[in-house]
Amino acid sequence: MALKVYLSGEIHTDWRDQIINGARDLDISFDSPVTDHDASDDCGVAILGREDSKFWHDRKGAQINAIRTRRGIEQADVVVVRFGEKYRQWNAAFDAGVASALGKSLIVLHGPEHQHALKEVDAAALAVAEHPEQVVQILRYVLTGALP
Amino acid sequence: MALKVYLSGEIHTDWRDQIINGARDLDISFDSPVTDHDASDDCGVAILGREDSKFWHDRKGAQINAIRTRRGIEQADVVVVRFGEKYRQWNAAFDAGVASALGKSLIVLHGPEHQHALKEVDAAALAVAEHPEQVVQILRYVLTGALP
Amino acid sequence: MALKVYLSGEIHTDWRDQIINGARDLDISFDSPVTDHDASDDCGVAILGREDSKFWHDRKGAQINAIRTRRGIEQADVVVVRFGEKYRQWNAAFDAGVASALGKSLIVLHGPEHQHALKEVDAAALAVAEHPEQVVQILRYVLTGALP
Amino acid sequence: MALKVYLSGEIHTDWRDQIINGARDLDISFDSPVTDHDASDDCGVAILGREDSKFWHDRKGAQINAIRTRRGIEQADVVVVRFGEKYRQWNAAFDAGVASALGKSLIVLHGPEHQHALKEVDAAALAVAEHPEQVVQILRYVLTGALP
Amino acid sequence: MALKVYLSGEIHTDWRDQIINGARDLDISFDSPVTDHDASDDCGVAILGREDSKFWHDRKGAQINAIRTRRGIEQADVVVVRFGEKYRQWNAAFDAGVASALGKSLIVLHGPEHQHALKEVDAAALAVAEHPEQVVQILRYVLTGALP
Amino acid sequence: MALKVYLSGEIHTDWRDQIINGARDLDISFDSPVTDHDASDDCGVAILGREDSKFWHDRKGAQINAIRTRRGIEQADVVVVRFGEKYRQWNAAFDAGVASALGKSLIVLHGPEHQHALKEVDAAALAVAEHPEQVVQILRYVLTGALP
Amino acid sequence: MALKVYLSGEIHTDWRDQIINGARDLDISFDSPVTDHDASDDCGVAILGREDSKFWHDRKGAQINAIRTRRGIEQADVVVVRFGEKYRQWNAAFDAGVASALGKSLIVLHGPEHQHALKEVDAAALAVAEHPEQVVQILRYVLTGALP
Amino acid sequence: MALKVYLSGEIHTDWRDQIINGARDLDISFDSPVTDHDASDDCGVAILGREDSKFWHDRKGAQINAIRTRRGIEQADVVVVRFGEKYRQWNAAFDAGVASALGKSLIVLHGPEHQHALKEVDAAALAVAEHPEQVVQILRYVLTGALP
Repeated sequence: MALKVYLSGEIHTDWRDQIINGARDLDISFDSPVTDHDASDDCGVAILGREDSKFWHDRKGAQINAIRTRRGIEQADVVVVRFGEKYRQWNAAFDAGVASALGKSLIVLHGPEHQHALKEVDAAALAVAEHPEQVVQILRYVLTGALP
Repeated sequence: MALKVYLSGEIHTDWRDQIINGARDLDISFDSPVTDHDASDDCGVAILGREDSKFWHDRKGAQINAIRTRRGIEQADVVVVRFGEKYRQWNAAFDAGVASALGKSLIVLHGPEHQHALKEVDAAALAVAEHPEQVVQILRYVLTGALP
Repeated sequence: MALKVYLSGEIHTDWRDQIINGARDLDISFDSPVTDHDASDDCGVAILGREDSKFWHDRKGAQINAIRTRRGIEQADVVVVRFGEKYRQWNAAFDAGVASALGKSLIVLHGPEHQHALKEVDAAALAVAEHPEQVVQILRYVLTGALP
Repeated sequence: MALKVYLSGEIHTDWRDQIINGARDLDISFDSPVTDHDASDDCGVAILGREDSKFWHDRKGAQINAIRTRRGIEQADVVVVRFGEKYRQWNAAFDAGVASALGKSLIVLHGPEHQHALKEVDAAALAVAEHPEQVVQILRYVLTGALP
Repeated sequence: MALKVYLSGEIHTDWRDQIINGARDLDISFDSPVTDHDASDDCGVAILGREDSKFWHDRKGAQINAIRTRRGIEQADVVVVRFGEKYRQWNAAFDAGVASALGKSLIVLHGPEHQHALKEVDAAALAVAEHPEQVVQILRYVLTGALP
Repeated sequence: MALKVYLSGEIHTDWRDQIINGARDLDISFDSPVTDHDASDDCGVAILGREDSKFWHDRKGAQINAIRTRRGIEQADVVVVRFGEKYRQWNAAFDAGVASALGKSLIVLHGPEHQHALKEVDAAALAVAEHPEQVVQILRYVLTGALP
Repeated sequence: MALKVYLSGEIHTDWRDQIINGARDLDISFDSPVTDHDASDDCGVAILGREDSKFWHDRKGAQINAIRTRRGIEQADVVVVRFGEKYRQWNAAFDAGVASALGKSLIVLHGPEHQHALKEVDAAALAVAEHPEQVVQILRYVLTGALP
Repeated sequence: MALKVYLSGEIHTDWRDQIINGARDLDISFDSPVTDHDASDDCGVAILGREDSKFWHDRKGAQINAIRTRRGIEQADVVVVRFGEKYRQWNAAFDAGVASALGKSLIVLHGPEHQHALKEVDAAALAVAEHPEQVVQILRYVLTGALP
């Protein structure tokens, strides 16, 4: 068995690297959004031309990023969504909604302080983890049956 | 033409009433989540029995609320998602993701201060409004062709 | 809001009547399989001609019953599956699998003695109840927001 | 032609090995659930933390197992579901319901003593076999046209 | 419970009338193709202009008839396909294939002389009947649980 | 039998009125885009605020119009697309593509001068008519079997 | 570009070999039903045990053959259905209906004598050919743009 | 990450070559329609026999071309549609509609002179570019995160 896993959400800590490294002996292909914050914000105007209005500046970028996000989620078997300490991270919750509606297996990753605020997202998930290594353990168990 | 509209998101102001009242001469049926905050939080344990853990307390409630939310979004032609001043409102962004993945026409309603943080959600929407009366105007135009 | 509810599973107690009576003031239409055990077993051969083999006797009946079951589940918003004291009730678990794969809101109804054996079915459900009146309370809450 | 086959159900006899060995010259990739009973029961708490309640202990495990099961069934061309002598095996019947609703080719494998109880499941299948070697013969015929 | 039933196939005997009359006390809405053979053959050229080639004459008509057939099958809960004594009736078998692929409940109606030739079509059906009154009995049982 | 028909395309002649009037004795409900050219062009900025750039002015309007178009096409049994004398009418061809991909019965209405340029669109249609009264005749035949 | 092509229908002439040989320089993978008539008729009872009734003898075989047919059609880009001189070939028309409902590109292959009887099937096809070499020419053109 | 990109629309300039060459270091497989105008127009009659009527001449060709187009769009992650200077290019807008309805990521490529006429098509796109090199930049960013 092989898995395709999409890693959505927070881009300011190294949680993706922890998961990818921890799972490097498993038959998994990982996809992610572009995690360079500035590139992600400005890709639209950098390629398609500048906008006076911040709203359309953001729109152009968000739609180009959606090409990658849409493909990543649609082809995934498992979507992991990480909610971090900072920012509102509505795009993470949006991705979780997309993944849920498409019938993907959803794993949510967040600290206990967000438990109540994320209860609807968690309720759509097959696992709620606090630490990246737990996600690795889940993926290892799913693929090999081995427990930590 | 008639429309089914689901009103998702913030439950602490009267934006739903403004829209429903403003559109009361139109052929629209509105659905919403349960907007009584306490009932929404406690429905799970009130019906299915108490839990020691807040996590499972929340889970039981969120899953019962999902029965209503899922049906409301699946049957809607248009899903309006409102982001307010307070709380993290991840459930609103999650609903927007579900609506988007199901191919629903999405209208997002929020103040200008959330524009950058909501850019991915806005990019999936057919309209981004700031005021409930704009949503009424959109619905009126869609159904009758009349502009304000 | 109105709901379509399909009541699947055990046919030897009056749980369906309890739910239908308890919810008679709500805007719900209920469907069920044929609950006359003998008619359900023999409908195939009674209409399409006798079979020497019990296997084909059963097959003919099960396929005619599937016309009703399939339509009931496909059109439902909510599927309630009841597991009772007796028999193996594999058809109930099969219906739950169908409902889950079709994205229906699933409510499972069974006593605590079956908790471990039904863990995979329960894990696909939005609510696990022990008593028919809890199902009524869930439906009432979903439709009206009222708690018991 | 190549086939993907998911082997669902009973985990206490060597029927999977018999099928996989019997079909080892055919172009088939097999998937299965985790068949280590203890690991399967405890994976949730082993990875995500212990629970006081057996209900949530089971829930956590069943949901992690669902990641593997869901992927296995969704990607399969053929789903074989085995009902054995022991236990209630509601998860097997649930998997059969999922496979049926997803339009998978279903093969059911059980002894004659379960024929009446499994009539609804059998009625959704394209073949009902008693012995694992019959499943091998079906797969061989489907891929090569050769009969035993 | 109400049913939508599409009556496909042979148009030279009164089998549709027998079923509709026999079921007139049941909550069923019936649809059928246009059963006027000449109108059905010539509708294309009568409306859209004559063709020199019989092939395109037939094509124009068949495509207009497809508007009705497609809608009838797509909206049906049950599709009954009748194979009669005469003609090749490939359109009947084609309709059965469409109904099967769309997951409709299929009832096939034909005499025993066609059993071997129709084995693939019958194998996709939930009931194979010889007489129109058996179809009525099936529909009555499905809706009311009453046996003949 | 009843039909839902969406009338897409050219908005500068009275072809919609001709069809609706001609079919007024039939059980058909018609939907159309907003056919007031100015309202259709300006709805976005009139409701959601002015834009300096014509591109975003157009975008805002086109997306609001898409709420109506999407719903109209998705709920239709039959989509009629009219190509007139003037303008490029890419939105008409776009609607035809959407209708085709959704499996709707497509009727294309245009003069012979556009035959070669519309060959790909016509090839996806079940009927290609030149005059609105032919569309009425098709709808009448589909619903009643009567030929002109 | 590569293509998957399923060759359905008549099994008594060498039309499949003609197509496969003619296209052997193209990037196409072909699938077909089992074309050994006796094996195809008897596979059910040979593997799953004899039946007294010819009806169930046929059923068992047809359902095992459906495992191969279903997979072949579902994974195909193009389905070619051949109608020959002999037999009623309802299974060929059934396969064409399945292919059409699944949105596959359908090519029908038959002599001019069947044109009127096959008009509904032809009307669902993207090409109607008389000779296997025409099918090869179509496939070659689709893949390479080269005309004969 | 790898991408499948379908290049639809104008066939009289070298825009496809510019994109394919510009992206030759990226993990992308490109598909296109047959871009030989004469072959594309005449493929139907060249293979399936001549037609007296230009309408059916065109139909035969357009349907064979649809085999390639349909497969190209259905398997693509991204569909780029180019509108050029000449012709009406309704097939390009039709392809855009198909791509949109199938949920593909749509990139539209056209000069500023077509902005108003293409507003509905653009409104369904995730990016609107003027130059082929912008499409290359988008694809490079989507796959690698690198900006120009």
